[in-house]
Amino acid sequence: MTTALKIFCDAPISESAKALLREGVGSHELIFPQKPAASVLAKSASDPAFASADVAFGQPSVADIQHSEKLRWVQLSSAGYTRYDNAEFKAWAAVRRLAVTNSSGVYDVPCAEHVFSFMMAQSRRLPESMKTRAASGTPIWTRLRNASRSLRGQCAVILGFGSIARQLVRMLAPFEMKIIAMRRRPRGDEGVETVTPEYLPQALAQADHVIDILPDNAASQHFINAERIAGFKPGAAFYNIGRGTTVDQEALVAALRSGQIDAAWLDVTDPEPLPEDHPLANLPNCFITPHVAGGHANEAETQVRHFLANLERFVSGAPLEDRIM
Amino acid sequence: MTTALKIFCDAPISESAKALLREGVGSHELIFPQKPAASVLAKSASDPAFASADVAFGQPSVADIQHSEKLRWVQLSSAGYTRYDNAEFKAWAAVRRLAVTNSSGVYDVPCAEHVFSFMMAQSRRLPESMKTRAASGTPIWTRLRNASRSLRGQCAVILGFGSIARQLVRMLAPFEMKIIAMRRRPRGDEGVETVTPEYLPQALAQADHVIDILPDNAASQHFINAERIAGFKPGAAFYNIGRGTTVDQEALVAALRSGQIDAAWLDVTDPEPLPEDHPLANLPNCFITPHVAGGHANEAETQVRHFLANLERFVSGAPLEDRIM
Repeated sequence: MTTALKIFCDAPISESAKALLREGVGSHELIFPQKPAASVLAKSASDPAFASADVAFGQPSVADIQHSEKLRWVQLSSAGYTRYDNAEFKAWAAVRRLAVTNSSGVYDVPCAEHVFSFMMAQSRRLPESMKTRAASGTPIWTRLRNASRSLRGQCAVILGFGSIARQLVRMLAPFEMKIIAMRRRPRGDEGVETVTPEYLPQALAQADHVIDILPDNAASQHFINAERIAGFKPGAAFYNIGRGTTVDQEALVAALRSGQIDAAWLDVTDPEPLPEDHPLANLPNCFITPHVAGGHANEAETQVRHFLANLERFVSGAPLEDRIM
Repeated sequence: MTTALKIFCDAPISESAKALLREGVGSHELIFPQKPAASVLAKSASDPAFASADVAFGQPSVADIQHSEKLRWVQLSSAGYTRYDNAEFKAWAAVRRLAVTNSSGVYDVPCAEHVFSFMMAQSRRLPESMKTRAASGTPIWTRLRNASRSLRGQCAVILGFGSIARQLVRMLAPFEMKIIAMRRRPRGDEGVETVTPEYLPQALAQADHVIDILPDNAASQHFINAERIAGFKPGAAFYNIGRGTTVDQEALVAALRSGQIDAAWLDVTDPEPLPEDHPLANLPNCFITPHVAGGHANEAETQVRHFLANLERFVSGAPLEDRIM
């Protein structure tokens, strides 16, 4: 017999997902905040009920977490975890034996599919192609046909090798591309050629596609800067589904204007959304979606199921999935 | 020792591809028409030099072919072969022992990638998503995230199972979709569930994606008609990279307006291009590219290499690749 847990949930979930959660937690007690978070990405307000919780599911504030004396496990409702991703918090969590998991398993497939849709649209020149009614045999038509590409035999460099990258690599397998991943600490289980940042220049110099899946932390600020962009293979395409802060956007604008980068496809920017008159929002070779890469039908239900599966592991003492601390 | 062949080439190839062709044919003689075809899809004018050719590479006219007494093999520079796809010509070619091959092997990968780029763009709602700067947490943002899909677990029906479909099935493998192919005469080597047109209604009723790769011939005219569309799963997406004539476009317009079909993605229409004021060209949920699915860098060189590989087989008496008659 396990003791009933108190589970604080500030994830902004739908009524049907809430029903699923209620049913799934069984005899454990759910505590909802007075004011739920605005989105899966937004920081929650501090809530007095938090102090009694054993488990938190959502985006609890760092202050609430650190003031709690009972909390044993936090499951974040996002894949990104910028607010918690610093040495101080990590050290604190380790000392306190607080387990922290994220929702990678909820978002890895849709995120990988989203950036893959960018790669395919770029490769087949969809934005340009969907705008023209050029007749067969005309110069513009011939130019467009020749500018269309097959991914077959091309080279992709993936910056940041987590669960999204793993899913992307699976999706790219039929295209027989050369894939190089960059990871600070390669583990040898990546299944593709993996380099540390030190050896990145050689990889970037041959990449037709540079895919940024970096999280937002101290080491990743403006990782894609003017110097690294200058080392891209001329005409490469750049994609970002990591975080907007990982890119020096001024350098990106310059490279898109000069043609050093053929096109940029961004699901994330800094800030979000960009001001209407921001150069990136107005360049003809920059394509932006509003941080929707993780979106999918029944997202809240997928989140709840992912949490409930981990709750079962937590109760039985099994290792948690998507554990980040 | 083989006798030198006379090879008539009216494919509208670049100078570099022509150089590759000259080098590749060795001691065989090349004959070029006075006026090359306007594109890989256009019908050539009749040419007096044709009568002396043993082999033709391009889009020779049916009249020229049937008047020739020497011709033994035609390699078409396209994957489609409408002009030659009728019982009369096929019977004549059989009697005359004329071999006819097409360029499927040149176009199957780019065509499959093109329709796959459509499927990914549809699934991730790219056209809509690229237009909005909605902020995180706003109703339009939440709606867009929920409208985005993963291909995982969805159902695709492929109409027409040739080499493009085979490539597409390979590309879809990582998505673990339910794939059903329709083929008039299933051979058992398709590698996916295959039904004849008779059993198509059951398949269409469950398809999230209906992919038309049908060629243009007597049996395929308006194959996608009002009745079949009425049997689509409501909200399905429709794709056409076959031929425009295989669709009753009026019925398609009606279904796009009513929402029975969520969106149509067409690389082919009837006619091409559509008149500027054609309803399909103006519907917000119809996305059209101008018959560029087969396009890729160095297309002419790929064509020439494909022809030369078949020329080697022809000379040595080996079975030709992509033989259609």
